[in-house]
Amino acid sequence: MVHPTKQALLEAGAEMLLEQGYHALGIQSLLTETGIPKGSFYHHFNNKEDFVLGVVDLYMDQVHEVLDECVKDQSRPPLERARGFFEKTRTKYREEGYLGCLLGGLGQELSGASDVFQSRIEQCLSEISAGIEACLRQAQTQGDLPEDTDVGTLADLLVNCWEGAALRSRLRRSPDPLDEMLDFYFSAAESLD
Amino acid sequence: MVHPTKQALLEAGAEMLLEQGYHALGIQSLLTETGIPKGSFYHHFNNKEDFVLGVVDLYMDQVHEVLDECVKDQSRPPLERARGFFEKTRTKYREEGYLGCLLGGLGQELSGASDVFQSRIEQCLSEISAGIEACLRQAQTQGDLPEDTDVGTLADLLVNCWEGAALRSRLRRSPDPLDEMLDFYFSAAESLD
Repeated sequence: MVHPTKQALLEAGAEMLLEQGYHALGIQSLLTETGIPKGSFYHHFNNKEDFVLGVVDLYMDQVHEVLDECVKDQSRPPLERARGFFEKTRTKYREEGYLGCLLGGLGQELSGASDVFQSRIEQCLSEISAGIEACLRQAQTQGDLPEDTDVGTLADLLVNCWEGAALRSRLRRSPDPLDEMLDFYFSAAESLD
Repeated sequence: MVHPTKQALLEAGAEMLLEQGYHALGIQSLLTETGIPKGSFYHHFNNKEDFVLGVVDLYMDQVHEVLDECVKDQSRPPLERARGFFEKTRTKYREEGYLGCLLGGLGQELSGASDVFQSRIEQCLSEISAGIEACLRQAQTQGDLPEDTDVGTLADLLVNCWEGAALRSRLRRSPDPLDEMLDFYFSAAESLD
């Protein structure tokens, strides 16, 4: 059980980071926004990096919850389960005003100069890709994808193309790049032979 | 003809921005790096935003040069001309140590909070997409793409998926995500009917 103060800081941080990025985020603005005193922040976090890694952990907890739900959804064929994850993610983006993906944002801003964020964000995308790979493997087992398809690569591709579509969605504040990418990808995946 | 001091600042800035992003870049580090005095910087640029917009302009000059060359390359079929642009971009990424795309980096970091960068980076990606669209239209005219394909959307898709692959390339310091994306996209585009 996460302490409510810690949870409030992480949730407000996630929102501010998505809009402003890492370096532009001031701890003081976060404290003003949440009405939480500085001492409480430093009780829960060593520094800004530690805090933002905590935001990423929270983000990934939510991702894994949705991903597990989609991977295990026996009511839909496996390829639709994979698509379902991104459709739920798109709904989240809509609620946030189409600001794209926090992982993509932090990955772009920080992975050139910070080994910590470079490896943490890569790990996050790999975890998402592993969930998608599970759906694609189910699709392969039941004959919806050819036997010789490298489903690991195909899952990575989907995650990566999604990240690019999420950037364009952020630039345009629109869902269209997300939908166009999903349509193209799944139509191509279904035609593999 | 760009003043040599201005050119030196822009070139060093492009390299530093690709690694560190916008907010982490200090004008003082740039001056130390280039050995150029502060007065010269402020002779050529009003402020950091003005400077970084200048870096983006320089970047786009280089992009348009490569793009024009690829679009007009009659020695290759049109779909290969489009692919050729990204292959040349990949070579540039290799020379930079696979740090991904400056436009993607600035777009992610800044487009949530800055209208100026939001619209400038969107414009850059649209310009690249327009060049790719010209190749895809040539492909359509000679029957390599179906008549009813929306080549504008297909060009945007390629640019967007590339941006996602460039992020993953940056996270892994590897060309593999770039190559996998190009293979998938062009194989799918060639199978459209």
